Amino acid sequence: MINNGFILNDNDLYHIKTVMRMKNHDKIQVVYLEEPYLCTINNIETNIEIQIKEKLSKEEDNLSDVTLIIPLLKEQKFDFILQKSTELGVKKIIPVILSRSIIKLDKDKENKKIERWEKILKEASEQSFRNDIPKITSVKKLSDLKEIEGLNLFCSTSEKNRSIKYILKNNAFCDKINVLVGPEGGLTKEEEKQLSEIGFISITLGSRIMRVETVPIYLLSVINYENME
Amino acid sequence: MINNGFILNDNDLYHIKTVMRMKNHDKIQVVYLEEPYLCTINNIETNIEIQIKEKLSKEEDNLSDVTLIIPLLKEQKFDFILQKSTELGVKKIIPVILSRSIIKLDKDKENKKIERWEKILKEASEQSFRNDIPKITSVKKLSDLKEIEGLNLFCSTSEKNRSIKYILKNNAFCDKINVLVGPEGGLTKEEEKQLSEIGFISITLGSRIMRVETVPIYLLSVINYENME
Repeated sequence: MINNGFILNDNDLYHIKTVMRMKNHDKIQVVYLEEPYLCTINNIETNIEIQIKEKLSKEEDNLSDVTLIIPLLKEQKFDFILQKSTELGVKKIIPVILSRSIIKLDKDKENKKIERWEKILKEASEQSFRNDIPKITSVKKLSDLKEIEGLNLFCSTSEKNRSIKYILKNNAFCDKINVLVGPEGGLTKEEEKQLSEIGFISITLGSRIMRVETVPIYLLSVINYENME
Repeated sequence: MINNGFILNDNDLYHIKTVMRMKNHDKIQVVYLEEPYLCTINNIETNIEIQIKEKLSKEEDNLSDVTLIIPLLKEQKFDFILQKSTELGVKKIIPVILSRSIIKLDKDKENKKIERWEKILKEASEQSFRNDIPKITSVKKLSDLKEIEGLNLFCSTSEKNRSIKYILKNNAFCDKINVLVGPEGGLTKEEEKQLSEIGFISITLGSRIMRVETVPIYLLSVINYENME
């Protein structure tokens, strides 16, 4: 931020000029250090200038802080989850390696992948007018999850009784939920056991068969719904 | 159905042989007149035969009968809604013409379109192991909706108080819900007025901004959730 305005990076300039096709005097919302500002665009032809018109009040939502823990999936499905869960308010995503996830990722490629995921999350945040961008961590193993704080859940295909509804009803004042979604084919018995041992609670989403990439949307929808007045 | 077996049409044969790459003795679930049968495949190289092994019991779900009324959208988004809402249990889809939907459809092309939509619904049903296929009607106008029976709702951007949660809590025993989703840019004031006049109730889904194609998934998720034990 300088002189009551902002300097944008090349990616954002490209997005504003070429993708959004904005013009001089168009208004734009800029988020800087998690604070939203309403700005106008000047000099778009030469040196683009973004002038602050006013600082906006930060929208406080009454939503739980939700972390999704998801398996590595084919690019298209993983990207879909990033986009839709950003739209539905996810705060953090933890990619995790599971026995039945068919995608492997070598350590060399991981950083490049994370950069790509961060870009997708940023763009999805802009499109849904969020003031913050969900965080994504490096790829974890199940054993890395033992330090995680909050209400820890995992979607189980063997759990028949304890439903997501029962859990949400009985944890109405919980403001931090971490939920792990299994890969196609589900978690192995050993993985379910390991998760239980580090304090994760198994839940069922009911008898309907959902695709892996639909589960995060379902989860965020019903958590948003439970948080609704 | 003949001789304790089924004759399949060319599309299904293609699907079984080429897409699913099934082999002789593989088991397959066939739904005939809304009844499910477990069958085995024989003679796949020449004249494919599907032999009934047993008639399966029809899974009874305790879900509401939900009809989605959705605007014409770009093909990719419309197809996405058909697929995901089949997965989440929608019973019927009514495409509707609204002022702000950018897609127009001439009468000539409508039948071809409906055939295509029916094919997508059938495939999505197979993939999510449903015993039935959601129905899709011809393209309607708002005035055609006045005869529709059940709890009639529309998602409104001007409604601030009456939430989907309030409505579902207060209609817990309703077994037929029809819900209209607006196009990008929302319904016009005139359309909201017209809908109110024919008995549709305006609802809000909260302050989060969702894309049109996400709204049906959200709606079906929370209705399934409310129906959960």
